[in-house]
Amino acid sequence: MYRTHTCGELRSAQAGLTVTLAGWVQTVRKLSKSITFIDLRDRYGITQLLFGEELSQQLTENPLGREFVIQVQGEVTERTSKNAQLPTGDIEIKVSSYTILNKSMTPPFTIQDDTDGGDDLRMKYRYLDLRRQTVKKNLELRYAVNRAARNYLHENSFMDLETPFLIKSTPEGARDFVVPSRMNPGEFYALPQSPQTFKQLLMVSGYDRYYQIVKCFRDEDLRADRQPEFTQIDCEMSFVEQEDILSMFEGLIKYIFNTVKGIDYTDHVERMTWEEVMWNYGNDKPDIRFGMKLLNLKSAFTLGGKLTAHGELIKDAGFGVFDNAETVLAIAAPGCSEYTRKQTDELTEWVKRPQIGMQGLVYIKCNADGSLKSSVDKFYSEDKLKAIAEAVEAKKGDLILVLAGREERTRKAMSELRLEMGRRLGLRKENEFKLLWVLDFPLFEYAEEENRWVARHHPFTSPKPSDIGVMIENSPVIAEAEKYLEHPYNHIKANAYDMVLNGNEIGGGSLRLYQRELQEKMFAALGMTPEEALHKFGFLLGAFEYGAPPHGGIAFGFDRLCSILGGSESIRDFIAFPKNNSGRDVMLDAPSTIDDKQLLELSIQLNTSGRDSL
Amino acid sequence: MYRTHTCGELRSAQAGLTVTLAGWVQTVRKLSKSITFIDLRDRYGITQLLFGEELSQQLTENPLGREFVIQVQGEVTERTSKNAQLPTGDIEIKVSSYTILNKSMTPPFTIQDDTDGGDDLRMKYRYLDLRRQTVKKNLELRYAVNRAARNYLHENSFMDLETPFLIKSTPEGARDFVVPSRMNPGEFYALPQSPQTFKQLLMVSGYDRYYQIVKCFRDEDLRADRQPEFTQIDCEMSFVEQEDILSMFEGLIKYIFNTVKGIDYTDHVERMTWEEVMWNYGNDKPDIRFGMKLLNLKSAFTLGGKLTAHGELIKDAGFGVFDNAETVLAIAAPGCSEYTRKQTDELTEWVKRPQIGMQGLVYIKCNADGSLKSSVDKFYSEDKLKAIAEAVEAKKGDLILVLAGREERTRKAMSELRLEMGRRLGLRKENEFKLLWVLDFPLFEYAEEENRWVARHHPFTSPKPSDIGVMIENSPVIAEAEKYLEHPYNHIKANAYDMVLNGNEIGGGSLRLYQRELQEKMFAALGMTPEEALHKFGFLLGAFEYGAPPHGGIAFGFDRLCSILGGSESIRDFIAFPKNNSGRDVMLDAPSTIDDKQLLELSIQLNTSGRDSL
Repeated sequence: MYRTHTCGELRSAQAGLTVTLAGWVQTVRKLSKSITFIDLRDRYGITQLLFGEELSQQLTENPLGREFVIQVQGEVTERTSKNAQLPTGDIEIKVSSYTILNKSMTPPFTIQDDTDGGDDLRMKYRYLDLRRQTVKKNLELRYAVNRAARNYLHENSFMDLETPFLIKSTPEGARDFVVPSRMNPGEFYALPQSPQTFKQLLMVSGYDRYYQIVKCFRDEDLRADRQPEFTQIDCEMSFVEQEDILSMFEGLIKYIFNTVKGIDYTDHVERMTWEEVMWNYGNDKPDIRFGMKLLNLKSAFTLGGKLTAHGELIKDAGFGVFDNAETVLAIAAPGCSEYTRKQTDELTEWVKRPQIGMQGLVYIKCNADGSLKSSVDKFYSEDKLKAIAEAVEAKKGDLILVLAGREERTRKAMSELRLEMGRRLGLRKENEFKLLWVLDFPLFEYAEEENRWVARHHPFTSPKPSDIGVMIENSPVIAEAEKYLEHPYNHIKANAYDMVLNGNEIGGGSLRLYQRELQEKMFAALGMTPEEALHKFGFLLGAFEYGAPPHGGIAFGFDRLCSILGGSESIRDFIAFPKNNSGRDVMLDAPSTIDDKQLLELSIQLNTSGRDSL
Repeated sequence: MYRTHTCGELRSAQAGLTVTLAGWVQTVRKLSKSITFIDLRDRYGITQLLFGEELSQQLTENPLGREFVIQVQGEVTERTSKNAQLPTGDIEIKVSSYTILNKSMTPPFTIQDDTDGGDDLRMKYRYLDLRRQTVKKNLELRYAVNRAARNYLHENSFMDLETPFLIKSTPEGARDFVVPSRMNPGEFYALPQSPQTFKQLLMVSGYDRYYQIVKCFRDEDLRADRQPEFTQIDCEMSFVEQEDILSMFEGLIKYIFNTVKGIDYTDHVERMTWEEVMWNYGNDKPDIRFGMKLLNLKSAFTLGGKLTAHGELIKDAGFGVFDNAETVLAIAAPGCSEYTRKQTDELTEWVKRPQIGMQGLVYIKCNADGSLKSSVDKFYSEDKLKAIAEAVEAKKGDLILVLAGREERTRKAMSELRLEMGRRLGLRKENEFKLLWVLDFPLFEYAEEENRWVARHHPFTSPKPSDIGVMIENSPVIAEAEKYLEHPYNHIKANAYDMVLNGNEIGGGSLRLYQRELQEKMFAALGMTPEEALHKFGFLLGAFEYGAPPHGGIAFGFDRLCSILGGSESIRDFIAFPKNNSGRDVMLDAPSTIDDKQLLELSIQLNTSGRDSL
């Protein structure tokens, strides 16, 4: 060993001990001709080194630069002026000798929490960026979550079973990354988008409880904060019902909260159906740390139709904007009734931005004195405004915000506005964590381009038992495209659930199909011919004929979970070597061209003009 | 939950309890009209079910087949005739009702330890093969090793840090699997052959101790028992010397022995240099559970030349086979002096097989009475034979076996013969585990085809400190190919080590280069131009300029380690979904062709005729 101790462990109890340390030069402070202080850094901490007269002289002749790697011998000494900020702040090392193990050029940016390096520079020199305390803390948190998840799952009889990476291409939804096979010319492996079918086979094989923390791959156009390779905590259980899975995995997340963040999450984890969250929050992963629920002043969002819109409140007032809109939605922003004209104008501009895309914003001020004042006073009497205020549960002092327009856009816009107001009002507290199960998703979604059904979760999700008949007895064919909403398949609910944390989907899963007949019906519903289904998933259909148990599972987005626990918006900060938005690793300069010989061996050639024909 | 208990947990203490079990029908035994026994199986065990008269009647009408999935309710009852073989053998369940959860066709082979299924059938129906107790035990062992390794490494401050799978192709030695990038037309990612450079960057970043249990990929022609994707326990440490790594990782393996196998490996782990093992055992991963060391009767194997051959013992006897051979090697097989002519003939045939490739076998019997009898009595007097016997440490009753021929082939053949004799004589005991460190490998190997040096371990391995000067001061160019043995580079020793278990290399590693100058010299030694080196490994050379610490590590072949601990020759038995020797997954039928649209999107096309030009 190049050291007897790390830079994080010495305390005054060790005073008098002769030690050897090794690490990086964080700072050099020459106090006088005879005293130089150096902060020595390693993974475990920082220790102050004191260089006396003779060694300081040497340092003047041969200066140590930032990030030099050195080894020092010396005596642990109690400091006269202690540094309470530092765990090792009670001591320093009186250096007797030192060796330079490696030099360093001046780093292209400072190795500090608030670095002066831009994103591109930091990514190119990621090995230096990883030295920064903030990034290191993120990766330490990631490892702690990894460790906690494994411990919890192990204690609950889950087994880590590895599934293959070189599999078969069965694109459903997202694009596969593919790998040409040299030994099988003209053929390709695919990288897994998830180990879905394998974990199901393991259930068929009787392994009962499976988990894996595993890389998955999707060749999608990268939006901000998506990565072509990402990590899942992937789990599956046999002989379970939905309730078993919900309680097992809220247990997992609570365990992680406790172990990693020291948070004792004793609250009951709330559960809402997909219809409820869409109705009340306008999206399927609501942030429930605050209220500000949506009030629907016009028509239901083509949900089950069980929830009633308050259409009568705005009817017959002659206000064209509301009358002609497909949907009119309101929220009550608490304590904002005294917004100035400038502030409401700014909010109006905010909803008119292209990302939000609304035409305008209507507001109703619920003044502290009980009076109401709106931007649509011309059309609505105070009584009518009062009725709206009551319906949206606005209190004195609140500001009601109303959006109107096309259904989907308006719903999304109001959902965004709600989150924005929550943020502005400090209701999305960084240290508050609020879990939510969203249940009973629709099984299918309508794909307009192809006039067919696609699986909302994935093709292996089972319908609610009460909907099995609907699925079996009806043809999936959509005879009249414009009437797809009336098709029986549009109302089938899935045995599917998402776990939402502070407005982010952190995990999702379902109870699976496990009977060949129903799985075949599902493939047919998605527009596959029996031949296609057999070609792509023959192994799974086969497996279901030999005693497949009822089973279900869940997968958590590990990168996302870590970033939320770490209080960051960006998953990239929690990945050691991430790729940029073009899928490039700028440090490696990958992807890159390969040799002609490699191409020949793989029986492929480039065809960069062929894309134009797509 | 479909069950209150598993099939492995009920004991007589639970007698009287009403329980629900779920699992697979292992066997149905109809004892009489009124009694049917069914063995119900799940991951945790087998429980006997007793169906009374009424239910037996139902079973007669609707029989339960093997591998049906059923759920039963009933009362735990103490058995009259207990089965001591079974943990649950004291009880049975008096079934009150049952439900068929899923049916099963008759499996294509029996789900038993000694199945009637051939290899191909078992691989096609791997999900059924995985149900067999033997395969399940293997995967349980694999998980136990995984868990033990993680616990040990965690306790020793190692962090699991994930490295990317979509990286840059830098083929050195083995071929890369590549992945066309859709977003970067004409460019490719590569799948990692190991996370080597990333773990080194993590050391440069100061993470100090890293580990990962991680998939790696090599596109090699598959010999028996190689897989295109395989798993490594990959580790790296900073500020260490060789001794630190050896003791840390023999600790790991001992911990695994203890935790997984209950073996307290207190023996000192033997250490031998590469020269010693090549000299004494003829290969670099000797099985040292037994002796039978090689005696060299002619010339040294172009090793360092420090070890002396016993050439004088066979000189000047006029025996052309020995006189003309490059190498003559002997071993003494203990207790085999009474081998019959038939037996020695059979051994001669054995060494003449094409896999071994020798011309013949010379033997010397050391009879119990002290006399010696050989197949070359014509040339060697009993005195000379006695001298040979003494040199090879043969005792009375031993049989000396001698091979002669071209150096490399003879050495390999003798190494194989030694292992074969060890096997035949029962010296390779299944329950004995013997670890060995092989140290001081050569840094370079000579590649005849290209008349250049290749890295024996990999291009990131450092030379012994005493050889750094030799490496720096000499040109790697081999002016005269036939004199490569005399080139100074041929004698440079590496800071590299392999861990050998029972004749298998289970892990290997090295102290790394960490200075740019030396790393550049290494790349040059391997025939790379400075431009190539920068193009391929610029990020690593760059990293070494910003304070790279001394570091080193090791990687264990996880599949192999598990198979040895499980007492099997085949790693495939320890992989849930392995590929066959053509790299195919016969269950999935992968690799397979992909759609033209996928090819177009990836900017590639097939070129199956291009290979012919290679």
